[in-house]
Amino acid sequence: MFKKILIANRGEIAVRIVRACAEMGIRSVAVFTEADRFALHVKRADEAHFVGDDPLAGYLDPRRLVNLAVESGCDAIHPGYGFLSENAEFARICAERGVTFIGPAADVIHRMGDKTQARQSMIAAGVPVTPGSEGNLTSLDEGLALADEIGYPVMLKATSGGGGRGIRRCDSADELRQQYPRVVSEATKAFGSAEVFLEKCIIDPRHIEVQVLADAHGNVVHLFERDCSIQRRNQKLIEIAPSPQLTPEQRDYVGELAVRAAKAVGYENAGTVEFLVVGHEVWFMEMNTRVQVEHTITEQITGVDIVREQIRIAAGLKLAYRQEDIHFRGYAMQFRINAEDPKNNFLPSFGRITRYYAPGGPGVRTDTAIYTGYTIPPYYDSMCLKLIVWALTWEEVLDRGTRALNDMRLQGVTTTSPYYLEILNCPEFRSGRFDTSFVPNHPELLHYSVKRHPSEVALAVSAALAAHAGY
Amino acid sequence: MFKKILIANRGEIAVRIVRACAEMGIRSVAVFTEADRFALHVKRADEAHFVGDDPLAGYLDPRRLVNLAVESGCDAIHPGYGFLSENAEFARICAERGVTFIGPAADVIHRMGDKTQARQSMIAAGVPVTPGSEGNLTSLDEGLALADEIGYPVMLKATSGGGGRGIRRCDSADELRQQYPRVVSEATKAFGSAEVFLEKCIIDPRHIEVQVLADAHGNVVHLFERDCSIQRRNQKLIEIAPSPQLTPEQRDYVGELAVRAAKAVGYENAGTVEFLVVGHEVWFMEMNTRVQVEHTITEQITGVDIVREQIRIAAGLKLAYRQEDIHFRGYAMQFRINAEDPKNNFLPSFGRITRYYAPGGPGVRTDTAIYTGYTIPPYYDSMCLKLIVWALTWEEVLDRGTRALNDMRLQGVTTTSPYYLEILNCPEFRSGRFDTSFVPNHPELLHYSVKRHPSEVALAVSAALAAHAGY
Repeated sequence: MFKKILIANRGEIAVRIVRACAEMGIRSVAVFTEADRFALHVKRADEAHFVGDDPLAGYLDPRRLVNLAVESGCDAIHPGYGFLSENAEFARICAERGVTFIGPAADVIHRMGDKTQARQSMIAAGVPVTPGSEGNLTSLDEGLALADEIGYPVMLKATSGGGGRGIRRCDSADELRQQYPRVVSEATKAFGSAEVFLEKCIIDPRHIEVQVLADAHGNVVHLFERDCSIQRRNQKLIEIAPSPQLTPEQRDYVGELAVRAAKAVGYENAGTVEFLVVGHEVWFMEMNTRVQVEHTITEQITGVDIVREQIRIAAGLKLAYRQEDIHFRGYAMQFRINAEDPKNNFLPSFGRITRYYAPGGPGVRTDTAIYTGYTIPPYYDSMCLKLIVWALTWEEVLDRGTRALNDMRLQGVTTTSPYYLEILNCPEFRSGRFDTSFVPNHPELLHYSVKRHPSEVALAVSAALAAHAGY
Repeated sequence: MFKKILIANRGEIAVRIVRACAEMGIRSVAVFTEADRFALHVKRADEAHFVGDDPLAGYLDPRRLVNLAVESGCDAIHPGYGFLSENAEFARICAERGVTFIGPAADVIHRMGDKTQARQSMIAAGVPVTPGSEGNLTSLDEGLALADEIGYPVMLKATSGGGGRGIRRCDSADELRQQYPRVVSEATKAFGSAEVFLEKCIIDPRHIEVQVLADAHGNVVHLFERDCSIQRRNQKLIEIAPSPQLTPEQRDYVGELAVRAAKAVGYENAGTVEFLVVGHEVWFMEMNTRVQVEHTITEQITGVDIVREQIRIAAGLKLAYRQEDIHFRGYAMQFRINAEDPKNNFLPSFGRITRYYAPGGPGVRTDTAIYTGYTIPPYYDSMCLKLIVWALTWEEVLDRGTRALNDMRLQGVTTTSPYYLEILNCPEFRSGRFDTSFVPNHPELLHYSVKRHPSEVALAVSAALAAHAGY
């Protein structure tokens, strides 16, 4: 087993990895830029190294991070999610320098990151993909012919794109003619590659993703699915495991597809295979070759510690579980508490946390790097807390979610928490039947008034009175 | 279902009940004495009523609490644990006034509270009890004859005693002659009853208890066992579910005994049947007719929300689970973080919490009523936090316990937390083989030095430097 792991990340996922290391008796090494000097991952790790004044550069410099790992005596690097986690070059440099990259091999990261290569691998493995171009488009005419064949609307996508960029929906041949040069130009500028491809546009799908674990000995298991249909502009807000809207047969089917996908590409470590689902139709969307933000809910329903398994797999150990050992129980739901104002177009609300009190009691888990007095820096994403609830039944998990959101105290920044209370109260959501159109179709859920707890109102009133009285 | 529940308790269990009410859409009513004006249960309940200047009297006055329930429109009272939770008179007054007492009937509380009546009920039901007097002793001579028959050492116990008081071990006839008048006198003074009985002293047993749930329709299930052998002077410190040292046959056996015991006395609501176990021998010790401090670990392994079930049962609903629906998974461990100094004979350490930061991440639950800035009053018990960890395997739960204890920040009072880290590190404890002699047999575990986190040391150093520099 590793002696010391460098964590090439920050925020809650860095804290999550520190915790896994602590439980496994492995020393953890944090890195931090100037903006993160007082960050929780720095306080919690066994050791912490400064990587520069720029808030981001230090987290994005593969050579510097691998050098630091070597110099500080680390035998492995955990990349977390985001930053360099899906950077094949980073994995390659690790391999060169003899530091284990906790994730799949560089060539697998590369192949799954290239959307047409990933599609081709899936087609070869018999995993259904949306109708569309098998490889990259060579011309607009090829695109027009293909679109005629599969029918509009279609999606035109940059092959190396990601994060919702380099994607355009085209509802007609005219639109496709207009958009083609734009996407090519955007792809060239943003991703350094003019390659584009075309897919049928799936209207209002559900977003279903399957967690897989694969070891170096050819063993691959899945840990069931997550339903991430509650999204706003491709950003997940609330995730649920298992999906309340899959039949047992569909569950087996997507699980089996995900294992097949992972085996087909020689996958190793934890990964997620994302699917679009409409009725009984299932299409491969993409594979994320890293731990996901929402891995927590899979941990809650299966009991498997995914970060621990990532580390064990990277150390060459066999999977601790066979497929038949893995069972799920109850429902888990994760709320991404973002420092954003939903009522103001989800504008980020960075600043100082004047008060944070974690919710507790049965079936409640928090993963966060915030604390009272912490200032959320404006340079990173706005997610400041993952609130995870679990219960034996769907009805109970809804009630527990409401309770836990109300139980939490998080002041100083505006968050998405009251918006989630509205979603939890929406009959369509409670019915467990929803797809990715839920958020855009329910703008009325943004018309809430923020209720303050009586004790806080009392406090505000006495503060106001005190101010008036001049003391 | 009830509309409004009065919580006749304080501290973490009152907060626990508020949470259950919130999840069930029931309004919660807290009560508080002057010492608890800033307590968390007051802040979290929907409504709170002052019950007097005396720190304790208001929590111990059955008529006043029932009146308050009636006046505030409550249809039920949850007694929690301690205080009036096992007071048959309280349950009787509730019944008289038409307020549902969330617990068993008054006569069942009374019968199980009287130790010789409880023994007699168990003997009649075929539940093994320790060899001893069938009823109360009528004379010292009867006691001497019985002790000769069953063999020394024996325990002389006050029939109405509890909490470890009114109990003496006698290793010989001479000791029994000496202790008999003392226990009679102590029982008369402390419990208002001169009745005593005698039992064989079981040397170094394991303390195994079984959680049961019984509804008003004759359905009784058990939720498996807890191992509470890690005790100091009859006070539980660390509880574990399931016991790492029962065979599946023993587990079935104690579960079946507990269900039989509950059925025999017409039990209704949640209760705990406590057993002494030595090797393969099992003896009934007592039944606690209320929710236990350690109900949390049973919730973690079974997923059943015990407080919710208590409320459902009291409302006349049928149990939501049949025995075959209840399964356990993994191991849960609860650490009672007490504000005490283990190194100073566990002297209580009341005072102001200058900093509290809850541990988080996978498999960690906290139940507490403390917060940063809260002052622990000296009038109540010293338990300030229940830290509960869960993992799929015994090894992982040990590691998770260590991690979570280290992860927590609780400053301003001295706690039992570092002592628990020593226990977790002790090979005998880690082997899962221990009995109630563990704590007295391991005084060396008290010889720890409190390690402070580097960041705290840095803070202390700069504070010291600042003080020296005069700013």
